[in-house]
Formats: sequence, structure tokens, C-alpha cells
Amino acid sequence: MSLTLKELSATLKATLNGDPATVIESVATLGNATPGQLSFFSNRRYRRFLKETHASVVILAEADQEEAPVATLVMDNPYLGYAQAATLLNPEPIAAPGIHSSASVHASAHIDSSAHIDANAVISEGVSIAAGCYIGPGCVILENVSVEEQSWLSANVTLCRGVQIGKRVRLHPGVVIGADGFGIANDGEAWIKVPQLGSVIIGDDVEIGANTSVDRGALEDTILEEGVKLDNLVQVGHNVRIGAHTAIAGCTAIAGSAHIGKRCTIGGAAAIGGHLEIADDVHLTATSSVPNSISKAGVYSSGVPIQENKVWRRNVIRMLHLDDMAKRIKALERKLK
Amino acid sequence: MSLTLKELSATLKATLNGDPATVIESVATLGNATPGQLSFFSNRRYRRFLKETHASVVILAEADQEEAPVATLVMDNPYLGYAQAATLLNPEPIAAPGIHSSASVHASAHIDSSAHIDANAVISEGVSIAAGCYIGPGCVILENVSVEEQSWLSANVTLCRGVQIGKRVRLHPGVVIGADGFGIANDGEAWIKVPQLGSVIIGDDVEIGANTSVDRGALEDTILEEGVKLDNLVQVGHNVRIGAHTAIAGCTAIAGSAHIGKRCTIGGAAAIGGHLEIADDVHLTATSSVPNSISKAGVYSSGVPIQENKVWRRNVIRMLHLDDMAKRIKALERKLK
Amino acid sequence: MSLTLKELSATLKATLNGDPATVIESVATLGNATPGQLSFFSNRRYRRFLKETHASVVILAEADQEEAPVATLVMDNPYLGYAQAATLLNPEPIAAPGIHSSASVHASAHIDSSAHIDANAVISEGVSIAAGCYIGPGCVILENVSVEEQSWLSANVTLCRGVQIGKRVRLHPGVVIGADGFGIANDGEAWIKVPQLGSVIIGDDVEIGANTSVDRGALEDTILEEGVKLDNLVQVGHNVRIGAHTAIAGCTAIAGSAHIGKRCTIGGAAAIGGHLEIADDVHLTATSSVPNSISKAGVYSSGVPIQENKVWRRNVIRMLHLDDMAKRIKALERKLK
Repeated sequence: MSLTLKELSATLKATLNGDPATVIESVATLGNATPGQLSFFSNRRYRRFLKETHASVVILAEADQEEAPVATLVMDNPYLGYAQAATLLNPEPIAAPGIHSSASVHASAHIDSSAHIDANAVISEGVSIAAGCYIGPGCVILENVSVEEQSWLSANVTLCRGVQIGKRVRLHPGVVIGADGFGIANDGEAWIKVPQLGSVIIGDDVEIGANTSVDRGALEDTILEEGVKLDNLVQVGHNVRIGAHTAIAGCTAIAGSAHIGKRCTIGGAAAIGGHLEIADDVHLTATSSVPNSISKAGVYSSGVPIQENKVWRRNVIRMLHLDDMAKRIKALERKLK
Repeated sequence: MSLTLKELSATLKATLNGDPATVIESVATLGNATPGQLSFFSNRRYRRFLKETHASVVILAEADQEEAPVATLVMDNPYLGYAQAATLLNPEPIAAPGIHSSASVHASAHIDSSAHIDANAVISEGVSIAAGCYIGPGCVILENVSVEEQSWLSANVTLCRGVQIGKRVRLHPGVVIGADGFGIANDGEAWIKVPQLGSVIIGDDVEIGANTSVDRGALEDTILEEGVKLDNLVQVGHNVRIGAHTAIAGCTAIAGSAHIGKRCTIGGAAAIGGHLEIADDVHLTATSSVPNSISKAGVYSSGVPIQENKVWRRNVIRMLHLDDMAKRIKALERKLK
Repeated sequence: MSLTLKELSATLKATLNGDPATVIESVATLGNATPGQLSFFSNRRYRRFLKETHASVVILAEADQEEAPVATLVMDNPYLGYAQAATLLNPEPIAAPGIHSSASVHASAHIDSSAHIDANAVISEGVSIAAGCYIGPGCVILENVSVEEQSWLSANVTLCRGVQIGKRVRLHPGVVIGADGFGIANDGEAWIKVPQLGSVIIGDDVEIGANTSVDRGALEDTILEEGVKLDNLVQVGHNVRIGAHTAIAGCTAIAGSAHIGKRCTIGGAAAIGGHLEIADDVHLTATSSVPNSISKAGVYSSGVPIQENKVWRRNVIRMLHLDDMAKRIKALERKLK
């Protein structure tokens, strides 16, 4: 696949400074690019690489244009432009339709003739796989799951009974959708299991990273609206709702019945408590801990960064006596009045 | 499945206020329930739904009874009653005995004739699967594992060599039991692997959530006693012991050789250090960090909740200089004396 | 397998105090060992067991020698000696070469005749598996992956297209190498996927724990150098580089484009931010949060340990007003001047 700068400029709606006939064949980082390649500049940490790049063209913002030694495509959001260009230059291979001879497909399942079911996949009773779907090796699709058009399950993905997957959904290896939520009721010293009777509904254009799990609802459904993006090793508890176009980075834990708004971004290793609501357009930085609802859009944070161990040891002891410190300050203030 | 209020009242040992002949067919939330359905009230956050419910009956505590507009089943622990009622009304389907033609079962394995081995499961040499067990699609059961009566492995579960699984154990997709613990010894700049020679023993009635891993012991066994409940994406290091009926929420990390008592509850995203002991009946709230032993039952916590980012930025800088603050308070106190 | 103390002493380069003809057949903990067994003493927490051990020999440091009631092998690093002795006494079984009849191997794959491909494994187009490798049940090896000599994949491991695995690599169940990184670009309210065009290179002698995921690079490769050891449920983002012989404990999250040095140790449940550099020989204690680069070797920490819940509640409120406290201290200091 190759494109001229004229074609790229038109598709990206970017202003071209350079020869429209130049041909671009692939993408690379500023530091590694060679002639025939396109790169982009959007993170100031890499400014030193911009000045010395050998790319044929760099996508960047107007303010940075003067620093580029090569042709430029100027856009407000260079990273978006790069994503679009890279997608055009790297079309995904399309799996030929068919069912691999080693796959195990229940007679009652409905597999569209344009879908591809790969080696050793298991498709259970009552499952429906729509047109253009790819179900990779080792995936297990349990009873009555439906997967809509053009969805792509990489390998070793598990979809539990009754889960509903939208269109163009991408699920990476090890993803588990619809396992039982953590519902237990105390009966003296033992726990009684609470049946998990809801399901999971995954909206269109959702992407879910490796080894992430999304539990089925206890009574109602766990819902990920369209365009939600989850990174790897995220835990989504039962009855959670995640609003459209919210993006959540790796190792975040979301407890049961949390309702997260639309267009939120949640940094990695965050912890979201249960039975709370987070408004639309909330942005949580990495390691944020959210025990209560957030009713107002904005940027929120918690967490304390590392220090040298010997300094941290002194500070952390004080942290455990903060309330005393506050009282002593108050006492001093009283004395001085 | 359906039950009259008379039957439910007797089974739950609950006091019925309402018509004993009313028939209940299913369960639902207070907000969604319609006639013929049972609901429950145990979380005050949902009080507004109690007053307007259309359920035929609500399980609740005596103190809340007056607020219910419909029939009630009064119990000290309404959530337990709900769990029991929901289980009665939703009996689990029982898999017909047999071995799926696509499963790979070693000739030396002993599979009880009432067990079900599903599609593409792998059963290795010397494995023993007891009566009534279900081994789901894609599960891999390695050498000499034993699984006792009525245990249920959903799909894509991995049991490593020699692991022992008790009765009525439930393992969700992606669970790994008995992988090598993180045992490495420093040899100059490189690490030498320490053979992991112990196994894992999982007690009766244990349930383990999706993508959770429980490592085999280094020398002795990793042990989960009866009734332990682990949520998703929990890490249990080698030589850990978890006492009976302890429940641990998602994304908690438990380092090697930690011994956790009986009837503990551990909130999500907690971090438990290695080589320590936690007493019986300890309760840790979410995000708790435990570097040392806890010798006394009680409720413990750590973690700092989010603030608006601009407020947090000011506070976190102070946190890094807490020891200075404490010394300045002391100096002020001396001056004022 | 059995060894005399004379043989062990020579192999470990340890000083023997005891009868060189004594035969050792296996290893055990100090507390459980019986005659014929070897144990070791390296963690002072277990000193009480040393004095009463029934082991035939204990590996320990010179300073502890007097406390042992039995023969000793004296070394500077007893844990290393134990690792070596335990490895000698417990040789790993070697799988017979061959391809299990239930495995699905693409005609174009190159499988060395000494490799073993186990039940229901899937080997895709263009894959290369070198001499002495073991690919366990349910593993999925996607297009054009190469696995070098003597590597061992336990079960249900997924290697995505093009990933390169070195020699003597050990991958535990549920490991995912080479899933797409979390690359998304904002387009109005929706996210556009950024193609993940790099791969993953895993060096020789790397070991990766259960359910850990290592993402493929966005443009360049994600790289784990030789001898890196990752515990379970670790997340390694795209473009990350981890230097040789760095060891990372469970549940640690490493964001994209972090570059971690050689010989680092990172405690469990740590959080490493993206686009930063960590020097060689940095040691992070458990729960450390690293938002910025660390340019100097040393020990670093963050995190606050648990307190009783009622004490923590008082302290955490103060934490949220630390900046006020600091200002009030300053005001007091001014007044007193």
C-alpha cells in the first residue's frame, strides 16, 4: 500500500507543505524513519528527534512546523492524523470465510457464511455469529451468545452464556466476558452464592485488552456503551455501566454497580469503588482511588509518588500521625491568639 | 420454577406479611420488578426504589417493613434470604454426563461416568475427575491433578500438575491454579530459578473468579481452605494460606508466604506483603496496603481518595515534606513553652 | 536422584561441616525436613526452625553456623545454594518429541523434530519452533512467531503474530505476548485505533508468570532483555523496554514507552508511568508509584500502610488538607519571629 502526499493531505484534511507527488509507503518514529516514510510529532519529549528526522513527511501542529527539516502535514491533532494515515497504509488482512476443521461448532449455532471460525475454537448451542466476524483459535463461545457484524476475537477469548457483543468489537487474547460477578451473602461464617442472573452487553466499536474481565450482572446487565476502550488486565465488576467513548487504562479495578459516564478517561492502576456514579467527562490520572461518586466533570487525582526509601520512611511515619499534627497546629494557633 | 410465598417463607424462615398463596416465578431489582417477581432491600442507597416497587414481595429487615408498598418477607439478613430465594428459583442446568468427541483425554485418566468433559478440553496423564464434575471447553488439566465431586470449571481454566481441587469448587474462565511461584535466587547479576516443588490444595466450596492465579508452593503447598471466595484478577503467591471463609475482592495482590486468617474480608485492589500473618476476622477496606502482620481482629484501611487535580497537586507536594512539617511544629512548640 | 554431601559441597562450592558420605535425596523446609533431606536458612523470621531442624544438612551463612544442630554447607548466599541443590535433586522431566494428534499445525510451520507440541495446541502459518521446545496444551501460536531452543510454554499461552521468543524462555499459563497496545487517538468524542505495527522481542532465559500480558509495540518493538523475570498478572505496555536481569513482582502495571534499566527489582503492585526512564540498579519496594524518570540507582518507595480504620479515617481527612496545614505552620513561624 502506498499513497502520495496529495492523497494523504486530502484524506486527513491536513495542510501540505511539500511536494504533492512524494510517495509514502509506511510509517515510522521520527528517530527511525527513512525516505518514503511518514512520521508524526505530538509529544514534546521527543522534540530532539523532530529536528533530525529523515522521514519524507511529518504530521504536526502549526506551532511546531518551523522545526521540521522535511515536508509537513499540518493538523490540529497530529496523533489523530497519524492514526488515520497508519490505518490507510496498513490495511488489516481479512480472514477467508470458513470454519476450521478442528473447530467444534454446535449444530444449533448460526454462523454467517462470511464469518471465519479458526482452529480449535468452540461454538456452543444457540450461538449466533454475524457476517464478517473472526473467531480466533482457542476461543470459547458459550450458549446463546450473539456476536454482531465484523467483530474480531483474537485467540483464547471466553464469552460466557448469553453475552451480547456489538459490531466491530475487538477482543484480545485472554479476555473473559460474562463470568459470574462476586456476589456472596453471609450465612453465619460461610458465604452463600448469589446467582448472577444478568448478562453483559458490549456496544459497537468497543475494544478490550488482553486478560481483562467483564463480569455479568447480578440481576440487570453489565453494560459497556459504544466506543468504550479498555486496556489489559482491567476488572469490571457486575452491574457496572461504562458510558460511550470512555477509555480505561491497564490494571484498573472497577467494583460492582459503579456507573461511569461518557467520554471519561481513567489512568492505569486506578481503583473505582462500588455503587457510585461518575459524571460524564471526568478524567482520572493514574493510580486514582475513587471511593465516592464524582458529580462534576473535571480532572481528579490521588496517589503519592516515590521518594528515596530513607526519605519515604520518615515521611510515612508522619502520615500515620497526621491527625495529631493537625491538632498540635490548632493548639499553637490558640496559644498565639 | 415457581414457589408460593408460603413455601418461600418456610424455606427462608422469614415472617410473611401478605397472601401465602401468591406465586413467585423469578427475581428482579426493586426498580424493575413486576407482579410475580420477588425483590429485596438491603442497601440504603436504593431506598427510593423500595417505596415504588411493583414486586409481588420484598425481602427486607423489620425496621424497613413499613416502607414497603407490597407483601414482605422479614428477615435479619435480607440479602441472604434473596440469595436463597434466587437460587431456588433459578436451578442450575446439569450437564449430561459424557466426554465430548473433541476433548483429549489421556488413557490413564480416571473420569467418573457422571462427569462431563466438554469440547476441546485436555485431560492429562494420571488425572482424576470425580462424580458430577463439569470440565468446560478449552480447560487444560495437567498431570496427576485430582478434582473432587461436583466441581465446576467454566472454560479455558488451567490446572497445573498435581493440584488438588475439593468438592463443589467453582473456577471461572482464565483461572490458573498451580503455576510456578516467583522463586528466584540472585547469582551475580543473573537470577537462578528456584524449583517450585509444592502444590496447591483448594478446599471444598471455594470459588475463584476470572483470570485469577494461585501459585504452587515452593516447598510446602499453597492452601485455600474451605469456603474461600476469590474475585477476578487476584494474585495468590506461593506458600500462601487463606483461612476458611475468607473473601477477597478483585485485583488484590497477595505476596508469597502470607498467611491470612479465617473469615477475613479483603476489599479490592489491596496489596498484602509476603511472609506475614493476618489474624482471623480481619477486615481490610479496598486499596489497603499491608506490609506487616496484623495480630488483632478488626477493620483496617489505607489509601487516600481522589481530589480535584489542582488541589491534589498542592497536597501531594506537602506529603513529600511531611517530616519537615512535623519538625517545624515541634520547634514552634518549644519556642512557645 | 540423590547426591552425597561431598558432591553437593563440590558443586555448590560450599564449605561442608559434616560427614561427606551422607546421602541427600530431596529438599524440605527447616520445620518439615527429615533425615535424608537438605534445607536452607536465609530468612531470619524462621530462626526458631533452624535450632530444631531434623534435616541432614542445612545450607546457611557462616554467621549462622553455630545455631545449626546438624551438618552444614556454608555459603555466602544460602538461598542461591538451595536453588542449585534443589535443581540438581529435582531434574525436570523432558517431554518426548512429537506432535499430539489433536494439535492443529499449519503446513507451513517449521517444527523441529525434537520439539513437543501437546494436545489441542494451535500453530499458525509461518511459525518456527526450535529444537527442544515444549508447546503445552491449548497454546495458540499465531502467524510468523519464532520460538528459539529449549523454550517451554506451559498451557493456554497465546503468542500473537510475529513475536520473537528467545532460548530457554518459560511462559506460564494464560500469558499473552504481543496483543495490541492501548493506542487510541481522539477524534471528537470517539477514539480512532492507532495500528500497533511493532512486535515483541523476548530475550533468552526470560520467565513470565501466569496471566501476565506484554503488548506489541506501536511502531518499534517492545523488548524484554535476557534474564528478565516477570511474576503473575503484570501488565507491560507497548514500546516498553526492560533491561537484562530485571525482576518484577506480581500485579505491577507498566505504562507504554517506559524504559526500565538492567538489574532492577520492582516489588508487587507497583505502578510505572509511561514515557519515562528508570536507571539501572533501581529497586522499588512494593506498591511504589513512579510518575517520572529515576536517573539514579537506589531504593525508592511510596505507599502508606494500613491503620485501624477509625485512626485512618481521621488521618486521611487531614491528608486532604495538608497544604492548609503547611500554610498555617508558616503563618505561626512568621508570628513567632
